[in-house]
Amino acid sequence: MQSLAAKFELLSDIEFPEDLKKLNLNQLPQLCTEIRNFIIENVLQNGGHFAANLGVVELTVALHFVYNAPYDKIVWDVGHQAYIHKILTGRKKVFYTNRKLGGISGFPNIFESPYDSFGTGHSSTSVSAVLGMAVAAKLLNETNKKHIAIVGDGALTGGQLFEGLNNLAVSETNTLLILNDNNIGIDKNTGTVNNHLSNINPLNNIFTNLGLHYTGIVDGHDVFELISSFKMLKDIEKPGVLHIKTTKGKGHPEAEKEQTLWHSTSKYIKIENPQKQKLNNKLKYQDVFGKTLLELARSNSKICGVTPAMPTGCGMIEAMNEYPNRFFDVGIAEQHAVTFSAGLAIEGFKVFCSLYSTFAQRAYDQIIHDVCLQNLPVIFCFDRAGNAADDGATHHGMYDIAMLLPLPNITIATPSNATDLRNMLHYFSKNAKGPIAIRYPKGLIPDVDFNFNNKVGINLPSGIIKQNEGKEVAIIAVGTMLEICKNAVKILASKSINATLYSMIIVKPFDETNIIKILAQNKFVITVEDGCKTNGAGSLIKQVKSDNNFLCKIINLGFPDEVIPHGSYFEIFEKYKLNAQSIADIVFENLG
Amino acid sequence: MQSLAAKFELLSDIEFPEDLKKLNLNQLPQLCTEIRNFIIENVLQNGGHFAANLGVVELTVALHFVYNAPYDKIVWDVGHQAYIHKILTGRKKVFYTNRKLGGISGFPNIFESPYDSFGTGHSSTSVSAVLGMAVAAKLLNETNKKHIAIVGDGALTGGQLFEGLNNLAVSETNTLLILNDNNIGIDKNTGTVNNHLSNINPLNNIFTNLGLHYTGIVDGHDVFELISSFKMLKDIEKPGVLHIKTTKGKGHPEAEKEQTLWHSTSKYIKIENPQKQKLNNKLKYQDVFGKTLLELARSNSKICGVTPAMPTGCGMIEAMNEYPNRFFDVGIAEQHAVTFSAGLAIEGFKVFCSLYSTFAQRAYDQIIHDVCLQNLPVIFCFDRAGNAADDGATHHGMYDIAMLLPLPNITIATPSNATDLRNMLHYFSKNAKGPIAIRYPKGLIPDVDFNFNNKVGINLPSGIIKQNEGKEVAIIAVGTMLEICKNAVKILASKSINATLYSMIIVKPFDETNIIKILAQNKFVITVEDGCKTNGAGSLIKQVKSDNNFLCKIINLGFPDEVIPHGSYFEIFEKYKLNAQSIADIVFENLG
Repeated sequence: MQSLAAKFELLSDIEFPEDLKKLNLNQLPQLCTEIRNFIIENVLQNGGHFAANLGVVELTVALHFVYNAPYDKIVWDVGHQAYIHKILTGRKKVFYTNRKLGGISGFPNIFESPYDSFGTGHSSTSVSAVLGMAVAAKLLNETNKKHIAIVGDGALTGGQLFEGLNNLAVSETNTLLILNDNNIGIDKNTGTVNNHLSNINPLNNIFTNLGLHYTGIVDGHDVFELISSFKMLKDIEKPGVLHIKTTKGKGHPEAEKEQTLWHSTSKYIKIENPQKQKLNNKLKYQDVFGKTLLELARSNSKICGVTPAMPTGCGMIEAMNEYPNRFFDVGIAEQHAVTFSAGLAIEGFKVFCSLYSTFAQRAYDQIIHDVCLQNLPVIFCFDRAGNAADDGATHHGMYDIAMLLPLPNITIATPSNATDLRNMLHYFSKNAKGPIAIRYPKGLIPDVDFNFNNKVGINLPSGIIKQNEGKEVAIIAVGTMLEICKNAVKILASKSINATLYSMIIVKPFDETNIIKILAQNKFVITVEDGCKTNGAGSLIKQVKSDNNFLCKIINLGFPDEVIPHGSYFEIFEKYKLNAQSIADIVFENLG
Repeated sequence: MQSLAAKFELLSDIEFPEDLKKLNLNQLPQLCTEIRNFIIENVLQNGGHFAANLGVVELTVALHFVYNAPYDKIVWDVGHQAYIHKILTGRKKVFYTNRKLGGISGFPNIFESPYDSFGTGHSSTSVSAVLGMAVAAKLLNETNKKHIAIVGDGALTGGQLFEGLNNLAVSETNTLLILNDNNIGIDKNTGTVNNHLSNINPLNNIFTNLGLHYTGIVDGHDVFELISSFKMLKDIEKPGVLHIKTTKGKGHPEAEKEQTLWHSTSKYIKIENPQKQKLNNKLKYQDVFGKTLLELARSNSKICGVTPAMPTGCGMIEAMNEYPNRFFDVGIAEQHAVTFSAGLAIEGFKVFCSLYSTFAQRAYDQIIHDVCLQNLPVIFCFDRAGNAADDGATHHGMYDIAMLLPLPNITIATPSNATDLRNMLHYFSKNAKGPIAIRYPKGLIPDVDFNFNNKVGINLPSGIIKQNEGKEVAIIAVGTMLEICKNAVKILASKSINATLYSMIIVKPFDETNIIKILAQNKFVITVEDGCKTNGAGSLIKQVKSDNNFLCKIINLGFPDEVIPHGSYFEIFEKYKLNAQSIADIVFENLG
């Protein structure tokens, strides 16, 4: 076996950009090869974003070879492609901890390193952020400081990027936007910006029309060409764009070929590891959503679907392939996705608008202004609700229940399992009279006997469903926390404590009648939800106690008012006492 | 005096577009003159948006002359320029009720008329909405149905518009974007889009870059030219842009000259009506914010300010004029405004980012992702918080406290008057270590002895301040509801009921210690807030009661979970029992 030192002959001596700068120019291709191998080995072993990072090896090496980070400011839009940046800025030795509890973050993080000049995770923020820094440098007379935003072609479709561009050209700063054009997002790109980039006229294009100097197209895998471009552009005192072409997955043939599949390595594991493949073949909420949507689309021509750039991730891809006229990937454009859905809904369609919970924050105004105030039947499917595990702080879907609760006309549904989800999708496709939000997490479904041949329930799902009868304590499980709470009940039963378990599958309209009964009948009530405690479902239950002068003890479990880190799904729950054993322990302590 | 019939010779016979279509082409200029006079008379009498409507008289007449509304879909972006549309579509006779309680809305409203095909009030939504409708028409085989969005040059800078454009050209619909270019928003435009429009190349511009057919520039005050353009474009089956030039305030010389001043008629009243001028010379919260900001900017070069297109409205204009390098109007671009502020803050500046509460909804994700998660010292000034009076449903700042409460690191301040606001601006400019939100309404300040020469308080404002001692009831006034609550206390005192009055000026961190004392000492507590009751400050107080098993009665006053209509400031408060007499009555009833 090749020794590590031989395999990473150059990389082994590099910890920081200053080490990189000591290399000769002609050593850089070898370094790039070593880095690519390092990424392939590590990410396939430990998980994380794969193909996007392989695409920016030469770009990252060239950036740190030419620029003077952290004095110069480099902001990675979306941030999932910053692994090589991390490896070259002091984090190579801890890179194996990437996305693990207590380890480094899978995204740039200002608390992790001064080289991460701005935290990114959501798309299309980089120009705004780096422009703020560039204006600050001007005010501080740091005229020599450089400012770079690296933006993918996918991120270019997000409206905020355009807001940034509108302000960029008039800024009189030296901001450089590096357009990393790999002609794909997670799924294939949509929209005219993409067409425009494919046939761009270097002298007359959207960037030059917005007053920016434009350089391109440069081969983003030619480290020499990148370096000479940067050296040329670095002292221009005007904002501009460097357009480079890269290949997502570069250097890994399967990843180059199947770029969506290899976006992150859970997809890789599917292919290479039979053990894990088995796991991956189990049904996820996303499969249940996707297949049910297809069922509905086949039976009703008034069903439409909209997703902002997540057709594969959310499960809409099958319906989109079968009915391309009724299912729409609108690009990274959450705001447009929601108002476009409202436009379809007002003309009589039942529109399933699938948004990752954390990205739905970006369409909050449109949810209020265009959907809720107009009481339109858009059925929001909030994917990746709650704990987003190793994606971490920027991706947890913590705030959806809290942000939706005050809005007029909306129904908030929290299915406890796949059967609930499928029933609700069917029910609301027929009966939605106004906005509906259905929230569910990423990941495997708990119902072992779930089957698409099962009969679909036809009634309105109830707010609160009693699962079993106990006496010492009542546990109210919100949505998919039911499974964990069932296990807590088993632990308690093993210690001769009988708990009553309730499943709350509709949070709004709030089932006050049943909550009153529960509070009247129990001396001790625990609520368990996969979201922020402040302003969540549990907080409503405390208010019912207050309004009725009950004296039962209520404990709300959920995520506290702090930044929630990354880790495995189970570790994150455990850390916040949202696992079965912790719930049981809390009961023991409080009954004691 | 000229009789009404003679004055509005043609207009008097027109109720609906079908009446308009009966006129000869050569009668239209006279009709436009009559409409302009009608608008001038009515809006100067009753209030509302003035200059923008004068700018679209010919455009609206031509649209309804050529197109077949409501079958054809016409969506007015921002919507404040839809008065003539309302007059020509069945609402001329009730136009005097515009923006009044129970009257017609100042914005398009789908519940008011089938001609208002989509509700607008916030900027840059129209292309998304009309594209949804156009796709729906395609699916329904309504191939003859036309789709038009009218977008101002100001609204063009909002990111969502760009997201819409990216999807428009690939849509294969007949959507027409009419770019109503009057070279101004409420204040003067900023950014490169505006520069681009001023020197547009008809064959190669941002629209053609995005694959849209472009026609322009057409004189938007030449009704004949508009009609022939519409007739030419109406049967093109591809999405495109018609670029027209108009003059905001057209036909009213003072309004044409002072377009920002005459945007709405409160500004007019300032000049023409000495009685109301006196009222207008009294200090508003916006004056206190603006002048204090200027004070701070003069004394500290690290103070910056950012506003998305509201420098005059929010009061930042004076600081911007004196320090153009540190105060930024970024255009209608709330998302960019927040992340740009974060970029400045991370480099050591104290950034005052002023957003109207309702428009801050559009930057919710950026507030979370870029500011709160990174704990950056951006001081958000949430203007027009709470009751937005005659602007109505789309503009009430109902949700700010609720949406901010769950976010990590943020402080939520609710000054009760101008003195609090000024003290807080001073305090946080020195002491902000993380994000701060200060919310206050539009309108006159209550403190009669407020003066910019008064000494500024230097300590951290407390969460809850006792105003006077009573016994039968405690009233907790959140923020600027203090004044109304003081009056309620007076009414109660006149009936020999002594109320204790508390002023809550910091909602987060939540002053649980003092709330516990208040709940322990009182049998009856009323909370009063100018925002949604669900998930507001009052709901936290109920949870404290629940946690401590207090048995006091708590009533939360605030806005219920419904769409809040338009009306005068006082009428809207009265309707929801948020006025002094109602509060006193509620005490009487509950003590009885």
